[in-house]
Amino acid sequence: MKVSILGGSGYAGGELLRLLVNHPNTEIVTVTSQRYAGEPLYVMHPNLRGRTTQRFDNREAGEKKTHDSDVVFIALPHGKSTGIVPKLLERGTKVVDLGADFRLKNPKDYQEYYKVEHKHPELLEKAVYGLPELHRKEIRDAQLVSVPGCMATASILGLAPLIKQRMVDENHIIIDVKVGSSGAGVSNSTAATHHSEREGGVRPYEITGHRHTAEIEQELEWLNGSVNVKVAFTPHAVGMVRGILATIHAFSTLNGLEKRDVWRAYRGMYMDEPFVRMVSDNRGLYGLPNPKSLVGTNYCDVGFELDSHSNRLLAFSAIDNLTKGAAGQAVQGYNIMTGVDERTGLEAMGLHP
Amino acid sequence: MKVSILGGSGYAGGELLRLLVNHPNTEIVTVTSQRYAGEPLYVMHPNLRGRTTQRFDNREAGEKKTHDSDVVFIALPHGKSTGIVPKLLERGTKVVDLGADFRLKNPKDYQEYYKVEHKHPELLEKAVYGLPELHRKEIRDAQLVSVPGCMATASILGLAPLIKQRMVDENHIIIDVKVGSSGAGVSNSTAATHHSEREGGVRPYEITGHRHTAEIEQELEWLNGSVNVKVAFTPHAVGMVRGILATIHAFSTLNGLEKRDVWRAYRGMYMDEPFVRMVSDNRGLYGLPNPKSLVGTNYCDVGFELDSHSNRLLAFSAIDNLTKGAAGQAVQGYNIMTGVDERTGLEAMGLHP
Amino acid sequence: MKVSILGGSGYAGGELLRLLVNHPNTEIVTVTSQRYAGEPLYVMHPNLRGRTTQRFDNREAGEKKTHDSDVVFIALPHGKSTGIVPKLLERGTKVVDLGADFRLKNPKDYQEYYKVEHKHPELLEKAVYGLPELHRKEIRDAQLVSVPGCMATASILGLAPLIKQRMVDENHIIIDVKVGSSGAGVSNSTAATHHSEREGGVRPYEITGHRHTAEIEQELEWLNGSVNVKVAFTPHAVGMVRGILATIHAFSTLNGLEKRDVWRAYRGMYMDEPFVRMVSDNRGLYGLPNPKSLVGTNYCDVGFELDSHSNRLLAFSAIDNLTKGAAGQAVQGYNIMTGVDERTGLEAMGLHP
Amino acid sequence: MKVSILGGSGYAGGELLRLLVNHPNTEIVTVTSQRYAGEPLYVMHPNLRGRTTQRFDNREAGEKKTHDSDVVFIALPHGKSTGIVPKLLERGTKVVDLGADFRLKNPKDYQEYYKVEHKHPELLEKAVYGLPELHRKEIRDAQLVSVPGCMATASILGLAPLIKQRMVDENHIIIDVKVGSSGAGVSNSTAATHHSEREGGVRPYEITGHRHTAEIEQELEWLNGSVNVKVAFTPHAVGMVRGILATIHAFSTLNGLEKRDVWRAYRGMYMDEPFVRMVSDNRGLYGLPNPKSLVGTNYCDVGFELDSHSNRLLAFSAIDNLTKGAAGQAVQGYNIMTGVDERTGLEAMGLHP
Repeated sequence: MKVSILGGSGYAGGELLRLLVNHPNTEIVTVTSQRYAGEPLYVMHPNLRGRTTQRFDNREAGEKKTHDSDVVFIALPHGKSTGIVPKLLERGTKVVDLGADFRLKNPKDYQEYYKVEHKHPELLEKAVYGLPELHRKEIRDAQLVSVPGCMATASILGLAPLIKQRMVDENHIIIDVKVGSSGAGVSNSTAATHHSEREGGVRPYEITGHRHTAEIEQELEWLNGSVNVKVAFTPHAVGMVRGILATIHAFSTLNGLEKRDVWRAYRGMYMDEPFVRMVSDNRGLYGLPNPKSLVGTNYCDVGFELDSHSNRLLAFSAIDNLTKGAAGQAVQGYNIMTGVDERTGLEAMGLHP
Repeated sequence: MKVSILGGSGYAGGELLRLLVNHPNTEIVTVTSQRYAGEPLYVMHPNLRGRTTQRFDNREAGEKKTHDSDVVFIALPHGKSTGIVPKLLERGTKVVDLGADFRLKNPKDYQEYYKVEHKHPELLEKAVYGLPELHRKEIRDAQLVSVPGCMATASILGLAPLIKQRMVDENHIIIDVKVGSSGAGVSNSTAATHHSEREGGVRPYEITGHRHTAEIEQELEWLNGSVNVKVAFTPHAVGMVRGILATIHAFSTLNGLEKRDVWRAYRGMYMDEPFVRMVSDNRGLYGLPNPKSLVGTNYCDVGFELDSHSNRLLAFSAIDNLTKGAAGQAVQGYNIMTGVDERTGLEAMGLHP
Repeated sequence: MKVSILGGSGYAGGELLRLLVNHPNTEIVTVTSQRYAGEPLYVMHPNLRGRTTQRFDNREAGEKKTHDSDVVFIALPHGKSTGIVPKLLERGTKVVDLGADFRLKNPKDYQEYYKVEHKHPELLEKAVYGLPELHRKEIRDAQLVSVPGCMATASILGLAPLIKQRMVDENHIIIDVKVGSSGAGVSNSTAATHHSEREGGVRPYEITGHRHTAEIEQELEWLNGSVNVKVAFTPHAVGMVRGILATIHAFSTLNGLEKRDVWRAYRGMYMDEPFVRMVSDNRGLYGLPNPKSLVGTNYCDVGFELDSHSNRLLAFSAIDNLTKGAAGQAVQGYNIMTGVDERTGLEAMGLHP
Repeated sequence: MKVSILGGSGYAGGELLRLLVNHPNTEIVTVTSQRYAGEPLYVMHPNLRGRTTQRFDNREAGEKKTHDSDVVFIALPHGKSTGIVPKLLERGTKVVDLGADFRLKNPKDYQEYYKVEHKHPELLEKAVYGLPELHRKEIRDAQLVSVPGCMATASILGLAPLIKQRMVDENHIIIDVKVGSSGAGVSNSTAATHHSEREGGVRPYEITGHRHTAEIEQELEWLNGSVNVKVAFTPHAVGMVRGILATIHAFSTLNGLEKRDVWRAYRGMYMDEPFVRMVSDNRGLYGLPNPKSLVGTNYCDVGFELDSHSNRLLAFSAIDNLTKGAAGQAVQGYNIMTGVDERTGLEAMGLHP
């Protein structure tokens, strides 16, 4: 497979490179970056030193080379894909877009959450929301896969079995997210992402109206047959580099709900999933999901607990925001689209400590 | 004032020393530590080097010296105060206890949350819950002040105006706490508090049935006239050293609630409080409470937002767990008990960055 | 005393504000910032919230107000002071400059290390290098005090007794520095200062020819009577926020040198210094200098060891780069210049942990 | 190949498991731990969850199973191997020992540096110092490989070309090491390794007489034909988890030495080495070795600079202390001993960020 990566100097683009450089079925035709055009990839991604001699292409050179590509990955800032994707689709190229431009089905959601009028609403239905645990079959046949947001991935996977089985009150779902600094992206370096400002604190941000709310509700409503779901979503910037923990506080709607019932719901949905693990036994160092164990992996670890005191069904979902939350999930989708084993290139098992 | 500190080698004891060594009204008669008896204080608390020549006394020597003391601070592990306090009270000594032994009013709560039969239930009513923002007058006349738990302090101060004004559904209150490593205490050093295990992760722990739940509900019910309050409380260990952020997700019960109404509730309660600040303008680097700004200070920063999407009233409350969450609050109570300006010795303003 | 702060939005300016807001002898007339003009100070320095209602002035307004000032502090980027200082001096105003523009005595050093021709070489002799431990008397009478660089402060104080007593080979002095992220300044936020890039690594930078070399050698040669000193200086960016540790590897020139000789050299020089502490007993948690204990304080902790294996005299020197390394030292100089107790406003004792 | 791991609950043992669980030529027969016997491996090493169903064996069960093993890895605390290795060797089993018991050739060095009389001095000559870059051929035929210490690995690889080419003064070599917290090991959890104590500081420790000095000098003297080498070695604990940076300050002995000469020395030695990379171009984010890029990899990154000001030859060497500094190097040796491609199982390329 020949692939192009448009936007290779950011963190998501770099993570794509890490996963694709040694991918057995893959030849990287071009990696673009306006800022670093002509420079070797390792200038921006020091981990690639000695592993590839490729250099960044500028936009024009890169675009030309996409003509040769079977699959184009787009890791550009939100809003940039809309202008590029239609041409690629016309040409018959497959596209895996890591941005938000094609995640939502309802054009109105772009107005509400992104404050833009979508330029190609006709493509929204064509795009497949690239969460394999929900849409594996559609991804197989898709020409355009839109990779979910990092916090949306953790949230949806943590909630899906509960929503599908209608175990919780859909109108009072709290998602309290803790996210590492790499989620801010490298080009968004501001005073608030400066090491001095971030280290040693916890900073709530975009505390209401967060954009990922739209895709979380869209997918959960798809799962439960269009029952309205209201998600109260608030992220917090913490002093780790990679990782997301979504803590989901929901209220049980079923009388006499027991742990084994919830367990069964999760098992039923994830038993055969290669990248979802149940971590719910409270055993050992991290007996519940902790993103620390997941750095560099494509796993989503999920766990839960019942709290009889508050009638709460508490769930946890952890991922690496750049892997399962972005580039890893993109490669997982790419594997599915191109018919190879879904786990190809995604076998890393995490570090301890 | 002559004061003793029983248990001076832990983090709370050390923070007491930091605040009292230069306290203008105070002479420290003894500081005890079984493990470090005979050693200079700076062996355990390097920040005290050059600021005091005192040494740790052993338990016996220390106990003798308490006879000379006007006030005894107890910073021993939970459960140790019960045996010591009655004797001190008989003698007429004032006591400020940083542990949990006298925080709860209902002896049954000790059975439920601490799995012990309380040895001196008759003293529970005598003890004053040492949160000045709620119990300033009682502290003034108290002989025994029981300093609130660190996470309880943040939670109660974040919620108090909302509960008092009955603005939120008392049965669906989520408190999602992020806490630094100093909360674990120095003597509880385990694999999980090892730097290698903690740094770079977010670890949920004691996710249900946390002991601080009892005192939070006790105080909130005291505030709202005994209406039952159910708190769903879950802490998370993050990779900072000092600090707590309590994120409070509650659901509004009032139709047409506006920001100014909530603002008025907070202002009404905290306007004259020397150590509670409103941080709710979303302006500047940290426009909402962030414990980073509070390291070493006795402030509690509170802020809030209305989320019309989920009908949520979202509140944030941040403190330094060792200062306002333990030793600073103890000194604040001590100041009140001994009739000096409440702010004495607690003027530090935090660092940036 | 009426003081102005030119350049108040950076980290050094913010630290000046922290130290001066409550300084008993001081009224802050103006704090300038082009970027934040009109905004309250807490927008950039969240720790000042509730402690001052002042706002940033723009450059023009600020400059006018300096006419009223007894002392002007300059915390602008290097190179900006040269244009401002001459006018202030003419007017008779006292100046404390935190930048490098007047630190070096030899104009040629500016060519070599800063790649600029100095515009006012005639003022270099007039300026006093503001390290009180070496130049206290001159500071007392100075009109222009040039505050030493942060890494220079740690290095000079660690080496001074050894150089003065000619205990080490002046041509083979290694200074290996570890520095926190606040040293980079807030306005220099680049990819390399991004939390994601800095946390979890150690990055050597400006490994040869570092600008602080010039002031270190200048001061050490002043101390030892103009014997040539060659310093091999290399800093490393580590993942802490505040703090510098300078590890000094030198080779002994005296036969039979013993620890007590070295101890005597340090004691002789620093015995009466309010802000230099000997930390050399290897006792307790940090029995050698560790910048962690010094966060927010004006101390310089120094310690040493003899290594018979390599004939080495090893010294350590730790400071908070923003306090003793910048604003604290500026205030110390200001106190001396204005005849108040040198320790005024600088009494903080550090935190543990 | 059937392998046993004696001592699998520590960090080095866990890293061995990470590397061997998927190693294509390897079946793990037993992993021992007294403390966790009977528990699944993931209890101690959360990253192994879902990747193996093995459990820890106790010592006795484990020892029996070593009879079936072709190779035994020992990751026990220093001093424990001496009693175990002789029996294994008699039986004809190959041994890879990660401890220090067989690293030194001269029994007197054990007296000096480890304060013990070596029980089996006759085995010291038989043991091969397991640094492939120096002893690849001997490793191939060895029955007992003694894996170098983590800080020794970084130091030797950084210095080897300079020593071999006799470019630097052998009597004035400074090695200033910065090391992450995982180097302390999980079982040595003390107050000083507690997150609260370590985070945010730099703590020099074992500043003279460090044990790794002995193996560094042994190997460098082996390289340069027994010319005496004196290494002045001092480590510093910093707030990262994995990683070592060794900064080597040496003084050039050759007149007119140029960068290309030094470059040639490094290239000559490392050109064909699969796990040593030259990072010396000062290009991009980390243009010099930074352990951050190496987390989880088996690389050693080396770089250098000439400093004409101080006649210094400055070198940097970075590794992950648990991989190239312990378990990765053990697996590299194991691959060589067993005749498979040296890189097998060690292909990870590091993360960014």
